[in-house]
Amino acid sequence: MQKKTQAVQAIQWQRKVLCLLDQRQLPVEEVWIECQSSEDVAQAIRSMVVRGAPAIGIAAAYGLALGAQQGADFEHSRGLLAESRPTAVNLHWALDRMARLESRQAADLLLEAQQIHQEDLAQNLTMADLGASLLSPGANVLTHCNTGALATGGHGTALGVIRTAWGQGKIARVFNTETRPWLQGARLTAWELMREGISSQLIADGAAAHLMRTQKIDWVIVGADRIARNGDTANKVGTYALAIIARQHGAKFMVVAPSSSFDLNCAEGSLIPIEMRDDLELTRLQDQQLAPAGARAWNPVFDVTPAAMIDAIICEQGIVRAPYSTGIRALLG
Amino acid sequence: MQKKTQAVQAIQWQRKVLCLLDQRQLPVEEVWIECQSSEDVAQAIRSMVVRGAPAIGIAAAYGLALGAQQGADFEHSRGLLAESRPTAVNLHWALDRMARLESRQAADLLLEAQQIHQEDLAQNLTMADLGASLLSPGANVLTHCNTGALATGGHGTALGVIRTAWGQGKIARVFNTETRPWLQGARLTAWELMREGISSQLIADGAAAHLMRTQKIDWVIVGADRIARNGDTANKVGTYALAIIARQHGAKFMVVAPSSSFDLNCAEGSLIPIEMRDDLELTRLQDQQLAPAGARAWNPVFDVTPAAMIDAIICEQGIVRAPYSTGIRALLG
Repeated sequence: MQKKTQAVQAIQWQRKVLCLLDQRQLPVEEVWIECQSSEDVAQAIRSMVVRGAPAIGIAAAYGLALGAQQGADFEHSRGLLAESRPTAVNLHWALDRMARLESRQAADLLLEAQQIHQEDLAQNLTMADLGASLLSPGANVLTHCNTGALATGGHGTALGVIRTAWGQGKIARVFNTETRPWLQGARLTAWELMREGISSQLIADGAAAHLMRTQKIDWVIVGADRIARNGDTANKVGTYALAIIARQHGAKFMVVAPSSSFDLNCAEGSLIPIEMRDDLELTRLQDQQLAPAGARAWNPVFDVTPAAMIDAIICEQGIVRAPYSTGIRALLG
Repeated sequence: MQKKTQAVQAIQWQRKVLCLLDQRQLPVEEVWIECQSSEDVAQAIRSMVVRGAPAIGIAAAYGLALGAQQGADFEHSRGLLAESRPTAVNLHWALDRMARLESRQAADLLLEAQQIHQEDLAQNLTMADLGASLLSPGANVLTHCNTGALATGGHGTALGVIRTAWGQGKIARVFNTETRPWLQGARLTAWELMREGISSQLIADGAAAHLMRTQKIDWVIVGADRIARNGDTANKVGTYALAIIARQHGAKFMVVAPSSSFDLNCAEGSLIPIEMRDDLELTRLQDQQLAPAGARAWNPVFDVTPAAMIDAIICEQGIVRAPYSTGIRALLG
């Protein structure tokens, strides 16, 4: 049976070109960017035309196929792509998998990239079923950032769980953070949810504690950019805050990520590189000055949630619970 | 000795008009709004030309003087002003104090408003000294929202402590949250600090947990819109999250507010009305669409921090520590 999702497909290979739905322009405009080279893809990743750990990995795999198509050196393309973003490990996972192919022919690389893409979607659907199985009927959920079709091969990780559980009628209310500084939640998650008629309410990141204190939230559900082998999880900045707040209010905390997001070479979260991005992402919004010109910012765009604060990690291989070192080794080691 | 501050004076009585520095336009432009009636002041409070609990109280007091100047009925003016914002108790405190005057003459009301204004500034300076005395040299501090000269009679509550402690050379690093949705931190606090050469770094609200995990923060210092008699403190949304995160990381938590912010008629935080503002404050930024048109939001703009999470409350009468019920009664009851 072909598994299906109604979600947007934001990464599309068309003839000899990789078409990416430009996530910087959403929700105002649906603009597609055509990438013809590995440089184009690296630039698209760096500038966040495409973002979300699994989507970055998929785009990078296609980037290697584009490189070969243009006659570029494989290792050169790989290096370019590897440096495009530091935190998500899916990027390296995808590049490594592509490098293990015996062939460097464009057609073979393209087939493998398409395979990675399709597998990610299938894994999303599996994870969505697993994650949804943990929710009780009438669940109130809170999610952070965008972990939907836009961030993945097509259904979503954390948002995939919500999408599937919503379809099963298990969810009463969905809240999603706006997710500063890049507003993935306000711009992308709200867009995906509205597009499919999933009712949700947007909150300021700072309102999560008041939300959990005054409304009952059963699960906070998030994705991951890299999971260390002890279960410590790097994800969009603000995730760690939500985990602390969830614990304080008895809300459960679920991480949803494919096996490609696990970094078994990484012993613990403190070893995960955390990307610092430009001050301007905080001090300006497009052409609008927010803070005074010249104001300085401290702009880490990821943080690390300790495994001890996570109630369940969902990957396509199954559900992992504490103790995570053992569980992750058993499933993926 | 005349106490002094170098901070901006954003509320100015000039001839027969109340001039307010329009906080909606900062930091891009310094525009002054002239209020000639109590209606003008109520509208300025409602629309956030002036915001910050003490500043709202001061502006409202001048609003009654303007009403009398125009021959308006005192109780009518008082009602208009009382309904302009629901959470800050300073508003009611100032209106009640004005109502206790025997005279309803414009000149007498103006004198009393000016007295409230001057007392607030003097109290700020006293609180700043008290708060600064709790900091050890080389302190790293984090503050939220804007609690500076713009939010008060002229020096600030939480930001007043930072301003004074900076002047004493006690502070190593200042971080301030941007404070969504209204960005008081990015727009106003950053502006006040830059104006006086106090070096600070802006963070996304969601980055506070990563900040406290990776940099040592000694004190989180915030203001208050209303303090119940058990010490529970309503303040800008996100404050409660910071208190939880501070506790998790061993950072201390200081609330700085004049006695006019205490509501001794209010037994505990759950009884404080929390203002919900328009969805558009989250879904749009001026003329820019952030979330898709029609997206719904849940937009409480205050939250309540339980007294148990507060290490010290500074008011002009002294420093209160747990048990707060006793301490507050001793100082203010």
